[in-house]
Amino acid sequence: MNKKFLSKAKQLKPQLTQTLVEIDAKKTSLNEGDSAVFDFGNHYVGSLTVQLTSAGSPQDAPALIKFKFCEIAKELDEDTSTYNGWISKSWLQEELIHVDTLPCVLKLKRRYAFRYVKIQAVGLSSKFSIVINNLTAETVTSAPESIELCGSTERESKIDKIALRTLSECMQYEFEDGPKRDKRLWLGDLRLQALTNYFTFKHNDLVKRCLYLFAGTCGKDGELSQAVFTKPKVVGDDAYMFDYSLLFIPVLQEYYEATGDRQTAEELLPIALKQLTLANANFENNVIKDSDRLGWCFLDWNLALNKQCGAQGVYIYCAKYAVKLMSALGKDTTAIENDIALKTKGAIAHFYDKEKGVFVSGKDRQVSYAANIWMCLAGVLSAAENAKVLDKVKCAENAVGLVTPYAYHYYVQALIDCGKITEARKVINNYWGAMADDGADTFYEMFDPNNPDFSAYGAKAVNSYCHAWSCTPSYFLRKYLTEN
Amino acid sequence: MNKKFLSKAKQLKPQLTQTLVEIDAKKTSLNEGDSAVFDFGNHYVGSLTVQLTSAGSPQDAPALIKFKFCEIAKELDEDTSTYNGWISKSWLQEELIHVDTLPCVLKLKRRYAFRYVKIQAVGLSSKFSIVINNLTAETVTSAPESIELCGSTERESKIDKIALRTLSECMQYEFEDGPKRDKRLWLGDLRLQALTNYFTFKHNDLVKRCLYLFAGTCGKDGELSQAVFTKPKVVGDDAYMFDYSLLFIPVLQEYYEATGDRQTAEELLPIALKQLTLANANFENNVIKDSDRLGWCFLDWNLALNKQCGAQGVYIYCAKYAVKLMSALGKDTTAIENDIALKTKGAIAHFYDKEKGVFVSGKDRQVSYAANIWMCLAGVLSAAENAKVLDKVKCAENAVGLVTPYAYHYYVQALIDCGKITEARKVINNYWGAMADDGADTFYEMFDPNNPDFSAYGAKAVNSYCHAWSCTPSYFLRKYLTEN
Repeated sequence: MNKKFLSKAKQLKPQLTQTLVEIDAKKTSLNEGDSAVFDFGNHYVGSLTVQLTSAGSPQDAPALIKFKFCEIAKELDEDTSTYNGWISKSWLQEELIHVDTLPCVLKLKRRYAFRYVKIQAVGLSSKFSIVINNLTAETVTSAPESIELCGSTERESKIDKIALRTLSECMQYEFEDGPKRDKRLWLGDLRLQALTNYFTFKHNDLVKRCLYLFAGTCGKDGELSQAVFTKPKVVGDDAYMFDYSLLFIPVLQEYYEATGDRQTAEELLPIALKQLTLANANFENNVIKDSDRLGWCFLDWNLALNKQCGAQGVYIYCAKYAVKLMSALGKDTTAIENDIALKTKGAIAHFYDKEKGVFVSGKDRQVSYAANIWMCLAGVLSAAENAKVLDKVKCAENAVGLVTPYAYHYYVQALIDCGKITEARKVINNYWGAMADDGADTFYEMFDPNNPDFSAYGAKAVNSYCHAWSCTPSYFLRKYLTEN
Repeated sequence: MNKKFLSKAKQLKPQLTQTLVEIDAKKTSLNEGDSAVFDFGNHYVGSLTVQLTSAGSPQDAPALIKFKFCEIAKELDEDTSTYNGWISKSWLQEELIHVDTLPCVLKLKRRYAFRYVKIQAVGLSSKFSIVINNLTAETVTSAPESIELCGSTERESKIDKIALRTLSECMQYEFEDGPKRDKRLWLGDLRLQALTNYFTFKHNDLVKRCLYLFAGTCGKDGELSQAVFTKPKVVGDDAYMFDYSLLFIPVLQEYYEATGDRQTAEELLPIALKQLTLANANFENNVIKDSDRLGWCFLDWNLALNKQCGAQGVYIYCAKYAVKLMSALGKDTTAIENDIALKTKGAIAHFYDKEKGVFVSGKDRQVSYAANIWMCLAGVLSAAENAKVLDKVKCAENAVGLVTPYAYHYYVQALIDCGKITEARKVINNYWGAMADDGADTFYEMFDPNNPDFSAYGAKAVNSYCHAWSCTPSYFLRKYLTEN
């Protein structure tokens, strides 16, 4: 724990803006077993207050009421009673509450992420019904208000609007991955949020706070946690991911580029560089060692994905950001540049399949989008060659695909980096556009166009439908795709 | 609504005595799916505070915790997930609570009735466990402290102790029927509570308050409700029972006898007498009309019981209390005495089966304990004849039996009234003694020695195991069965 860093983070803790959103429930009356759905009209993060009365005879039993909070309409019909996913059922946004005395103003004080609230009268007597008069959501965000929309078509503006809402809903005391789940600062997610933030909300102190939260909680050996918990007190997760730790480097470099805050950049540079040193221990002859440990490196939620090649790509990519940052700060970059050259050579020798024209990963020489995207982003080959690589992957049979907007972000970036602007725009319009067509108010944690029921958790009831790593169309549209 | 009466009731609202009862949970650790039972060592009424922490990695998911409050140990294993009784499942003393941040002091603010608390970790992640450090019950009662035990044997003293606890647990802002369910002032229950109170806690103002609550909420026609609700405001139940309304008369007479509070007796006498007038409308040729309406008259929870004959017994019994009270207040009782004579004649002519030597009820001429008990209590025959009637019922084949301590109370009283003191004592020792043997800390709402799983609600999970109408051994032991 670095107290100085955590104290800086604490000073940067933002105020949340609270807004009341009210629904007149028009005296909706429920008998035992009945339920009603209330639509707040947009995605919100906050608590709920419900004004209830009773009708009929005096209330001769407690009222047992179930509340279900849903980010998207499809969740409403999800049967969660048989939930058997591999993450905790405690993430299901449901409450079962006894009301002993009606009328009452019932406050559900937890923070929920929702557009829809389903209220069911689970247990009443036959002598009375409950009547719902009014619902009020007390919503919270640390995002500044309203950003002008961007996009060259109506569809793109719509995508931008959804992306902006996704980001602002995830802007709380920290950049959270998602307000439904995990409600937490994750390093890989932060990178994409920060990036989009510079082109939109410009809440740069929130990025700074998050940088110091990570830096202040790194382990004894200096490794950065995959995530930081801030309640009940600030503490780093005891789990680490190869790529997430390294991504601290681009977050810091881009923060410096966006803000010119040299003091922060200087102060956190050693921790950033430490991630390279630590990552280096996983190389043998300049080739990253593969691992069977689940979650050693993220890249994407596709469970079939081999991570070895992609991990090497992330390393080189991040090392190059280190060079950029060090140069800007006037530091000597010789050692890192030599290292990049060695790792680049190792990557080509070990992962590049000249015959196929693509990078392959793992002992089974798996062809995947993720591996090739990261090799392109790492610039192991030239931009022209990268363009060909990406074409080849598209045509490859059984190339392991992408299932998260997180991975799709890097795909779009790779396409842009090798000049395929039109294709990048198409991916945004097709992939994020498909979620928009699905009725999204915010973009999802996971989305596989070929498998709408996909969940990496074995049950989509716990999927998050407002996940910050999917907010980057607002970045792409502003930085690359819209003429000013 | 009689505002003057309700204002008197309000002035008599008692203070509750709050006591903290603490359990050191010795850092009981629970992983997902685990549960632990905590035994408070006696029956309590109150709220619960639990001190929780977590162990393992940082808490990376909410903790979903189930609390189950049980009055007796057998309830702990009751599977309530399949509950299908005909009263509301909202009576099940269970809570499902999300704890977002550990450690925490979790307050369960509702009032529960319990000796045991079962805590189950329903939803956690595999990365942390919950640790229970401490449980504190904040218990409430309006009963004065400790009464000297009574009984000629150790067994009887034990029965007395349980009966006293039963009564004191039900003494809250009103005399409640049971602190688990319905938590409410019922007229038939009040009668037995008040009676026992005069010989034990002597909290006579609580009886007075309850008398005024009933009197203040009687319907337009003057009929007294079966029960009174006091939250959110005082209101009479919109249901009425033939016997319960009439039992207001003995409650008032006995209150006057115990306190000499002539003002109250004078003030409430008209309402008491009104119950006789209203009940009279249900007679034809001095015989009560039978009814198919479920719950028109209570007597007992035995669903097979025909109520006609017993109802006539209750009428005569209560009319005699009216005579007693009116005489004491110097009123003319001629009309009521004439009425009693006619109803008595009608009872013998219509219900007494000379051949069998017992009273029979309904068109099927059903033989039941309840009908004969009430005819004995009504004094339709002489005490000597009543003794024979009770003997005959015992020997009758298929006589419909008793299933509640409420009905057993009147059985014991009938035995005493016709001089069968030894048998009365035996019933107390056998019937209430069997509950004591069952490990009871308080006596139950329903208890059928021949059918331990009996519930009038189709599911014993909602049975109440501390029910005031079972407190009368403390009355019998003091008034009739222990030499001073």
